[in-house]
Amino acid sequence: MTRIARVERRSGRPRSEDADRAIIEATLELLAESGIAGTTIEGVAARAGVGKTTIYRRWKGLEDLICDAVAELKGPPPTLPGTSIRDDLLTLAEAAARGRESARNRKVYACFIGEMARYPALDAQYRESVIRPRRAVTMAALQRGIDRGELRDDLDLDVLAEIVTAPTLHWMLHNPDRSPSREQLEQFLDGVLNGVARR
Amino acid sequence: MTRIARVERRSGRPRSEDADRAIIEATLELLAESGIAGTTIEGVAARAGVGKTTIYRRWKGLEDLICDAVAELKGPPPTLPGTSIRDDLLTLAEAAARGRESARNRKVYACFIGEMARYPALDAQYRESVIRPRRAVTMAALQRGIDRGELRDDLDLDVLAEIVTAPTLHWMLHNPDRSPSREQLEQFLDGVLNGVARR
Repeated sequence: MTRIARVERRSGRPRSEDADRAIIEATLELLAESGIAGTTIEGVAARAGVGKTTIYRRWKGLEDLICDAVAELKGPPPTLPGTSIRDDLLTLAEAAARGRESARNRKVYACFIGEMARYPALDAQYRESVIRPRRAVTMAALQRGIDRGELRDDLDLDVLAEIVTAPTLHWMLHNPDRSPSREQLEQFLDGVLNGVARR
Repeated sequence: MTRIARVERRSGRPRSEDADRAIIEATLELLAESGIAGTTIEGVAARAGVGKTTIYRRWKGLEDLICDAVAELKGPPPTLPGTSIRDDLLTLAEAAARGRESARNRKVYACFIGEMARYPALDAQYRESVIRPRRAVTMAALQRGIDRGELRDDLDLDVLAEIVTAPTLHWMLHNPDRSPSREQLEQFLDGVLNGVARR
């Protein structure tokens, strides 16, 4: 019994993984081309060359599928070196930039910003399943920086997080055809760490 | 002659201004509801209750109309107090927040970010006619701050501009249902001016 089950899984798994991969890629392509408004289960199924039931066997619905697709695109939250707050924040900035390397991926990010206000259910699920675990890594790094005396302890943690992450994220949104260089990420980071006022 | 011309303008102007106003409002409503993809001259004409020729008499085409509509929504660049770089930057941040007071206006901004990559002609015109003159005010304020010794002179001016403006702009994009409080704007500004690293 065990052996048969294993063989079944072995032969079945690659096909299923291929289908999952094709479905995720089709979702990202449709999001980049036509935005959230133009992305449907029917369209994904047609693009991926699978039946709708194959999608529904794996995802509860369109919100689930879109959140999973964007989470795949972002990749897992990075492992931080923990050597200094500067090293940790630079690693986080580089990870944020990495998910946007292709024009397709940048269009997916942009369409999320643009259309999310019209899809409250998707927005809520995206914030919960994609944003929250990644933001938690940033918040933990910042808290460690405060605890170790590297960061000011008189700032609201949300304000601190916004100040530290916004330049990179905002720059990428408004320069969708370029990736920030490492030097640029360091300039943003050192600017917010040391301040831009002369002293 | 002079008198007749004045009377003509007097009686003509309100009607024409009313139509212009209705066209601009219809454009903003369509952008908020359906994004750039759902905004057409035909749709604006129908919503505003005017003929297409009325729109084409005043605007060269859809790009022109959309850029004008968003420029109206932003309002003219603010007059800066010039008393200190902090006062100037706070005035600029408050002006940026002001254009986003209504949910409709925030949706218009968001759809621009989301869809612009798909409309290069509109993107180019928007950057030139709407962004550039407003950015020039910020850049001039920053240069004055450097010249007066208030800001570090060792930072790239574009990097400096991004660091100073990004927290407010990025926060507003991701919190489309709230307006930042003045206290929050000051926290962002003082954070980037003084730096978030402990010293």
